[in-house]
Amino acid sequence: MTAFGQKYEEYRAHFEAYLQSACKAMAFEPSVLTESMRYSLLSGGKRVRPVLFFAALEAFGMPYRGEEGLAFALECIHTYSLIHDDLPAMDDDDMRRGRPSNHKVFGEANAILAGDALLSYAFDLMLREAGRSARHLAAAQTLSKAAGAEGMVAGQSADLLYTGKNGGERELAFIYQNKTGRLMAAPVAMAADLAGKKRGAAEAFGLALGTLFQLTDDILDEVGESGALGKSVGKDAAEDKLTAVKIYGLEGAKTRAEACAEQCLALLRDMGTGHGFLHDLVAHLLKRDR
Amino acid sequence: MTAFGQKYEEYRAHFEAYLQSACKAMAFEPSVLTESMRYSLLSGGKRVRPVLFFAALEAFGMPYRGEEGLAFALECIHTYSLIHDDLPAMDDDDMRRGRPSNHKVFGEANAILAGDALLSYAFDLMLREAGRSARHLAAAQTLSKAAGAEGMVAGQSADLLYTGKNGGERELAFIYQNKTGRLMAAPVAMAADLAGKKRGAAEAFGLALGTLFQLTDDILDEVGESGALGKSVGKDAAEDKLTAVKIYGLEGAKTRAEACAEQCLALLRDMGTGHGFLHDLVAHLLKRDR
Repeated sequence: MTAFGQKYEEYRAHFEAYLQSACKAMAFEPSVLTESMRYSLLSGGKRVRPVLFFAALEAFGMPYRGEEGLAFALECIHTYSLIHDDLPAMDDDDMRRGRPSNHKVFGEANAILAGDALLSYAFDLMLREAGRSARHLAAAQTLSKAAGAEGMVAGQSADLLYTGKNGGERELAFIYQNKTGRLMAAPVAMAADLAGKKRGAAEAFGLALGTLFQLTDDILDEVGESGALGKSVGKDAAEDKLTAVKIYGLEGAKTRAEACAEQCLALLRDMGTGHGFLHDLVAHLLKRDR
Repeated sequence: MTAFGQKYEEYRAHFEAYLQSACKAMAFEPSVLTESMRYSLLSGGKRVRPVLFFAALEAFGMPYRGEEGLAFALECIHTYSLIHDDLPAMDDDDMRRGRPSNHKVFGEANAILAGDALLSYAFDLMLREAGRSARHLAAAQTLSKAAGAEGMVAGQSADLLYTGKNGGERELAFIYQNKTGRLMAAPVAMAADLAGKKRGAAEAFGLALGTLFQLTDDILDEVGESGALGKSVGKDAAEDKLTAVKIYGLEGAKTRAEACAEQCLALLRDMGTGHGFLHDLVAHLLKRDR
């Protein structure tokens, strides 16, 4: 295993242990509510956002141990978004990470509520963390903006609205930026908040990283490999969804992914963290499509 | 108009003016997101929870002007819960407050997202308010607990799970307490938080008031009048839903509503606010079923 791989695994395993223990302690009634929340939280996944949060904290010279609460909130928000996104009225995905999606196991109504409960729970954690310090409050507010109607939900809404027929470059950029980008940028910007640093470059880096992530995902979908970081594609996704490959072609998308990776690395230099884990993460994401 | 009616209207109109202005300022993209959020926020309703919050603040000797942020958060949470509750997979209600429900106008996917956006927006407001003082943070945390898997969402889940066939007195009490009670108790408990008072009696009063509200709603449904405070009944509600009238009979439910009103008044005396608007509100709710 590379040094990058070892470090990724250290962050991931630390988060996973916390998550397992937190999920074990959950005892919401009726029990179907707890079970449906746990089912999706514990469905594996690479825990990219918590890992990114921990790595960004270390990049800013901060300890990541002790900040599991906000990492958990991040993962709850990501998980709720997948549950709702998979619903028949949305992307209509029967499978997620190699297992039946939440509504296939618990039914649509329970899946809607599992998502609502996870979103509420995330904010409950964030309000708890907000009580620790002004910096924690700022970090919670950063995550809140990224998750809601100014961020991820806006991206979901645009993703529903625009297809290959009525959307172009601008709409694709909006979807990338909001649906994926904001929740990838949040952990980096939150780390900046906790470190008392300016959010600008951190947020820009996270957004670019999110775009890189989406570009390589689109490319992998096109060349027929399953997304290495756990994405699944909806039933109608191939025909209707607005993707980079549709707009720029396969080679165009690859060129853009390379430019995006360069931009990520330049932003890391601006942040004063030109080397190390985040640098390697960019290279790792770019390599996914090769 | 009675003094009670005038005061109700003062609180309601103050909130409504704030809400109208806040909704006008909303400019989330894509515009369908803003429109679907606005549609349900501005669909009328008696604004019971914001009114209760303002009234409880005054009962504790606090000004209510200046606390519109938490009132708005309350209404956003209530509104999101109605949108999701009306979905075909949930209660499958085509109408809400005399207008087509959100998903009938915007489609299911947009309605799911409108709910998600409103819930996120509520917490965004709460995190903003939490920055004002430790008491505001406490109030935001109170609302968060009431809304999530330890509160309203648990009540929704139980409401789906239990019917007249598999549920009894215990299950009905759980549904009342959580689905309706917690979001009625929250404004009173939040007012106690802001006033620096103990939450105990305030929360108990709100829970009892929520139960009274549900009991009189059930009675009104049974005797065929539409819920005076804006409730609508789902397509299958009449056959399947667990209600007080099913368990206790019409007269039994009425007796319980009276006992519940007595309990409310006793709790108000414990809170040191035996007279005034909250006292009259209890009497007003009880009278609904006569």
